[in-house]
Amino acid sequence: MKLTDAQQKEFDREGYVFLPEMFDDDEVAVLRREAEAIYASDREEVWRESNGVARTAFAAHTYNEAYRRLGRHPRLVEPVKQLLDGDVYMHQFKINAKAAFDGDVWQWHQDYGTWQRDDGMPTARAMNIALFLDDVTAANGPLLFIPRSHKHGVVEAGHDLETTSYPLWTLDRETVSKLAEEGGCVAPTGKAGSVLMFHGTLVHASPPNISPMPRTIVYLSLCEVNNHITKFTRKEWIAHRDFTPIESLNDDCLKELAREAVAAE
Amino acid sequence: MKLTDAQQKEFDREGYVFLPEMFDDDEVAVLRREAEAIYASDREEVWRESNGVARTAFAAHTYNEAYRRLGRHPRLVEPVKQLLDGDVYMHQFKINAKAAFDGDVWQWHQDYGTWQRDDGMPTARAMNIALFLDDVTAANGPLLFIPRSHKHGVVEAGHDLETTSYPLWTLDRETVSKLAEEGGCVAPTGKAGSVLMFHGTLVHASPPNISPMPRTIVYLSLCEVNNHITKFTRKEWIAHRDFTPIESLNDDCLKELAREAVAAE
Repeated sequence: MKLTDAQQKEFDREGYVFLPEMFDDDEVAVLRREAEAIYASDREEVWRESNGVARTAFAAHTYNEAYRRLGRHPRLVEPVKQLLDGDVYMHQFKINAKAAFDGDVWQWHQDYGTWQRDDGMPTARAMNIALFLDDVTAANGPLLFIPRSHKHGVVEAGHDLETTSYPLWTLDRETVSKLAEEGGCVAPTGKAGSVLMFHGTLVHASPPNISPMPRTIVYLSLCEVNNHITKFTRKEWIAHRDFTPIESLNDDCLKELAREAVAAE
Repeated sequence: MKLTDAQQKEFDREGYVFLPEMFDDDEVAVLRREAEAIYASDREEVWRESNGVARTAFAAHTYNEAYRRLGRHPRLVEPVKQLLDGDVYMHQFKINAKAAFDGDVWQWHQDYGTWQRDDGMPTARAMNIALFLDDVTAANGPLLFIPRSHKHGVVEAGHDLETTSYPLWTLDRETVSKLAEEGGCVAPTGKAGSVLMFHGTLVHASPPNISPMPRTIVYLSLCEVNNHITKFTRKEWIAHRDFTPIESLNDDCLKELAREAVAAE
């Protein structure tokens, strides 16, 4: 699994690349089922909206077999090693539920802004993978990107501790508008199993989900191993401190689990 | 300007029909410019979000020349006469701004629910036209429809006086979910100048606009003349009391204004 030259150039130019239906229905079904079990569990790694609905589960790759495999999946890890030109470790791992009706906003931000300010990550040699566990449509709170904004490096931000249940370094409206005049504003949508890879400094947000359809996305934040964080201000299960290079598993590592699940029924 | 048989059937089956780019850039430019002037004016017909940004301007066809013409435009009026099988009058006329960053949610509702309960409109022989004055994308708070929900007639609703600055009879989540299991949930998007025609009992909503792009839509609510309202509880400029059949103007009535504007520059 490697990105083509054209895909690499697109990533460099736009700050993201969209890979439709990288995982099939069986693989997605395993991950969705396990996500539900994790959300239903009473763990400190599971954060909730103010009304109790699950918002984010951290570090599932450390306590769930399906997500352990996803965190080492070659379809995700190999393209990122290619883009970051080196070995990578897992900086952060989240399963973000944007629940039907209740899923709340994520304000405009850059992930690397947080990684730099809060975690002392030296450079932006780090990036995100978003794997859709549900169809993402215009209706259920898609990710919004400002294309090309990653070229501006880290832009000024304020620490928002109030809007939602998750503290975030957010950009002001003037900055977002200026960047959008240049790059526009897009909302990549697609089927469950699709993957978005985006740069650590790409400016993004997502609106509330007022639709009756849930919208769960798994986020892997991968960092080149020599670029590991230097400040340990956040919980270990939010900003990981294990900088061991990830070794990919086999391409059918999730399929195997799906088959085992069927066999056990 | 008539709908095809296929379009009429689609409207009947799905509850809406989408007509891309019905108005050209010049026509849209005139309407957009006049909308800005109206929003900037200090009229009781202009309602604002709690932070002062314009949300809705009512009845612009009664005090603005471009909107007077739009309210009698054959591309809008003739298809509706066809769908409602009779002469029509203007029940309500709104220019809804969903301002960049600030545009607020419209909760799940049916327009005819309000027309029946508040205005005593006898039957659902009435419908909406939405004309996009900006490109509507997945990013800037598109209209969300539950296709086929119009077949259920008026469904139970509660009077929401708190969520936004506009009182609305809104549906509960269980009802919306049940209808969406049957019909799904779609967000028709398209270029400025595009038109959505949708049934008075079609269940719809729209999310907040957190994007840096504004999203203004003009709504004409047309009612068959014999089905006129019987209760006058709302302001005349919200629920009109002039039941005179609308006579269409010429197809170039807005183009003329655009040409005059250019000539005057």
